[in-house]
Amino acid sequence: MNLPLVARLLGMVAWLIGATMAFSLPWAFPAFGAGQDRFEKDGFLALVASMCVCAIVGWGLRRYGDDKSDDQSLFRKEAMAVVGLSWVLATILGGLPFLLGRVAYRSDEGKPVAMGIADCLFESQSGFSTTGATVLTAIENPDWVPRCLLFWRSSTHFLGGLGIIVLFVAILGHGSAGKAMMRAEMPGPNKEGSQERMQHAAWTFAGIYVALNVLLAVLLKLEGMTWFEATCHSFGTMATGGFSTLDTSLGGFESPLIEYTVILFMLLAGTNFTLIYLACLGKPMSLLRDVEWQTYVGIILLASAVIIVAGMWGRSDFAPEDTLSTGDELELAFRDSLFQVVSIVTTTGFGTSDFDLWSDTSRAILIFLMFVGGCAGSTGGGMKVIRHILFVKIIGREFERAYHPSVVRHIRLGGESITDPDLTRQILTYVGLVAMIFVTSWIALVAIEPAETWRAAQQPEANELIDSAGAVAATLHNIGPAIGIVGPTRNYAYFTAPAKLLFTFLMMLGRLELFAILVLVLPSFWRVR
Amino acid sequence: MNLPLVARLLGMVAWLIGATMAFSLPWAFPAFGAGQDRFEKDGFLALVASMCVCAIVGWGLRRYGDDKSDDQSLFRKEAMAVVGLSWVLATILGGLPFLLGRVAYRSDEGKPVAMGIADCLFESQSGFSTTGATVLTAIENPDWVPRCLLFWRSSTHFLGGLGIIVLFVAILGHGSAGKAMMRAEMPGPNKEGSQERMQHAAWTFAGIYVALNVLLAVLLKLEGMTWFEATCHSFGTMATGGFSTLDTSLGGFESPLIEYTVILFMLLAGTNFTLIYLACLGKPMSLLRDVEWQTYVGIILLASAVIIVAGMWGRSDFAPEDTLSTGDELELAFRDSLFQVVSIVTTTGFGTSDFDLWSDTSRAILIFLMFVGGCAGSTGGGMKVIRHILFVKIIGREFERAYHPSVVRHIRLGGESITDPDLTRQILTYVGLVAMIFVTSWIALVAIEPAETWRAAQQPEANELIDSAGAVAATLHNIGPAIGIVGPTRNYAYFTAPAKLLFTFLMMLGRLELFAILVLVLPSFWRVR
Repeated sequence: MNLPLVARLLGMVAWLIGATMAFSLPWAFPAFGAGQDRFEKDGFLALVASMCVCAIVGWGLRRYGDDKSDDQSLFRKEAMAVVGLSWVLATILGGLPFLLGRVAYRSDEGKPVAMGIADCLFESQSGFSTTGATVLTAIENPDWVPRCLLFWRSSTHFLGGLGIIVLFVAILGHGSAGKAMMRAEMPGPNKEGSQERMQHAAWTFAGIYVALNVLLAVLLKLEGMTWFEATCHSFGTMATGGFSTLDTSLGGFESPLIEYTVILFMLLAGTNFTLIYLACLGKPMSLLRDVEWQTYVGIILLASAVIIVAGMWGRSDFAPEDTLSTGDELELAFRDSLFQVVSIVTTTGFGTSDFDLWSDTSRAILIFLMFVGGCAGSTGGGMKVIRHILFVKIIGREFERAYHPSVVRHIRLGGESITDPDLTRQILTYVGLVAMIFVTSWIALVAIEPAETWRAAQQPEANELIDSAGAVAATLHNIGPAIGIVGPTRNYAYFTAPAKLLFTFLMMLGRLELFAILVLVLPSFWRVR
Repeated sequence: MNLPLVARLLGMVAWLIGATMAFSLPWAFPAFGAGQDRFEKDGFLALVASMCVCAIVGWGLRRYGDDKSDDQSLFRKEAMAVVGLSWVLATILGGLPFLLGRVAYRSDEGKPVAMGIADCLFESQSGFSTTGATVLTAIENPDWVPRCLLFWRSSTHFLGGLGIIVLFVAILGHGSAGKAMMRAEMPGPNKEGSQERMQHAAWTFAGIYVALNVLLAVLLKLEGMTWFEATCHSFGTMATGGFSTLDTSLGGFESPLIEYTVILFMLLAGTNFTLIYLACLGKPMSLLRDVEWQTYVGIILLASAVIIVAGMWGRSDFAPEDTLSTGDELELAFRDSLFQVVSIVTTTGFGTSDFDLWSDTSRAILIFLMFVGGCAGSTGGGMKVIRHILFVKIIGREFERAYHPSVVRHIRLGGESITDPDLTRQILTYVGLVAMIFVTSWIALVAIEPAETWRAAQQPEANELIDSAGAVAATLHNIGPAIGIVGPTRNYAYFTAPAKLLFTFLMMLGRLELFAILVLVLPSFWRVR
């Protein structure tokens, strides 16, 4: 293990995070229109102090690295270590402003409580992993949550969506290691290619991402948001994160136009960026003919349709007060269910309606959708649509093998045979590992968390088992809200610190597709080769 | 597909089932001491009529087979078809006595309701698959449930545990097909061997099974049960089924001695019968040194210990009234938790205590244990311990591959390398398929079942999601009781007919380890080769 080089690269990450914090500073001044009426001294100083810490940590790491060795060789192990550790480092540094700025949330009695260390790590990791789960219960109050720190919270989405390491690949280009980094960082299977192609892909990815962020921010501004709100929601949408500037999430704007705009951009954020790039180059058919994209859109439409039917057949989930005309109710049902399905499939987690009050069928479908995820090569988290497609095809082939053991066919995808002999094993391992982590974390959470948590949150204690399962799924797959105690109108504030640290770990696991984090805890990984 | 031969073999199954029904006839007479005070005319006639139907169906199938062809060649496809279809046939024929005997359960208003077709199929499949889930709510009343039919219900456990097809292998010995049948029928991976070895194994399996049944029945009689109760509970224990003769299951006898005896025999029923055979031959070390058996016992001891702690730390789950001395409470905690863990790991499903009132940690662990199952080569259902051992080892190897792609090690089990190249794929496919079936069935059940079911059962509607998950796990893994609406003191009576048919399908899937049933619905399976 070439630790000096790992340290030098981690130093760069620390500096990058510190530099990004600078963009949050202006919002401390009332003149920039974030909504507060006086200069936010605490928030401003917290950011400046955090930037200093980032600078010092970065300098220390680079100093350590330079002193030790000039060896520039970076192999797979080093690359995995850099990816995993840079997320750990980002989580710690990114949480500093919240801690130093004494950001507060509302206690059970309505009084402000300063965020603890576990809260800050949770909030920071939730941002970088583009989960969007929060412990903050009163984000509209600038006295409790300074605007500049709220902007920093959304900025972590922007950085996380881009993937700090994608920048690295593009900027530093460390040969085969760049490839390994990209492999660990870019979501989804199937990421082979030459180094130049990888660098080109990283630049393209970053370019589309920034362009869509700017476009969405401008649109949201035109549709009635302030620049502050527009930028934060743009970050939250394009990174498939889900942090909002309102306690009631995106639904608080009560604007169908904004909701449809965000639906469209969430859909784009969950689409393979390579296909968006090709569509921009005048080849829209490569998007429309892509099997993964077709499946992704198909799942969204089918799930929305079922939820509309389940919510209107003998019930009125979408308009409980029954004051709407049938046409308006249909439009609302279409918008609410489509929004929620897209929000969960893309792993964004914005809310416009309290889906926890919907029928059990709809809730079950939404929990299932948490395990689907966006397309490979998008900012969407979760397991990714392509893995599910391949998984179903692999299972189908195994059936055939059960009664025709001698016939071995290759799996076909969009007319092409997939001949990679490792693919079957990798897909099946991934699915099995998700099941294993899900079950283990669920039992751990139920064991850690006392029943008092549910009593304090005024939720039925009997819901501990199902709510815990939802919370584990929503953090592991980087979604954010789930059901019950962490439903769309509630949040993660009530959990104890150990549970929040467990969630922090799960969000990191999910964002880096399990392996890059899990190998860090294996002793054999660290043994000098 | 050699359908004539398939039909001839199915005809034998029908006759076998009809012949077994004869053993239930004597219990219709009060003189045999089953507890009723008059001859059960309805039950007796229902059994006789069902036996006639079995005879006619068997004769028809053999007639059809004999007329068509004399081809005796039986390949893998035919073998799979025979196994799958014989379970379908057994379910239908086995349910006839309940239907014709007008067996009744208690309605919401306390009145008797005759079992419908779905109820009879459910009950019959629950018996043959050794699940032990029931829709009957008042089995102690001979007017509603004739003793002879209650005995037939337990007899289906006996037949199911033995595996109707294991008999076939031993008696008919159809060459390579016997092997394929054994493969589909005998639980667990790794079942290769020559035909003679397979036949020998089948005879050994049957011999140990019958011997243990007799031994347990005698012991239970000595410990205070009637012969009727002793035989039924012996069938329920050794088949890891779980049907009882009391509404309160085994706990109704209130005898620690009986409970400890049943714990021991459940443990044996979940142990690989080959190892029991070797132990009987004077080689107990092959049992004690077996990695699967060590893991099986280890899981049981660990889970029991955690449940004891979770139930006594700040709570008193085992003695809620607090009338016991500390020593007595400890003994009760040890007995109740060990009994419940063994009952669920071996997939028996007997109950001595309402574990649904235990802590959420204990309930979560019990739900998790539903996915463990007994040892391969035992009568225990579920996923089997050996699959979990191999699964964990495979995942571990994949981690190593993630940072050392060039190093490929074989998986080692008990000091030996496993070199079967298909094993990794088979284990991973099985785990993935279980996850897929579990999730799909859960959504289907939630969608099928109205919230009224929970209201009628006086259970919180909010529990639909978690209770449904428990019910799917408990039927798919052939356990029986789960939590909430199907908790240990409740049963499956409240569900609608479509849900009961779904459960029936899941029990069959689980008993035949998924593939043998699922291929039956593939059109390509039926195409003439």
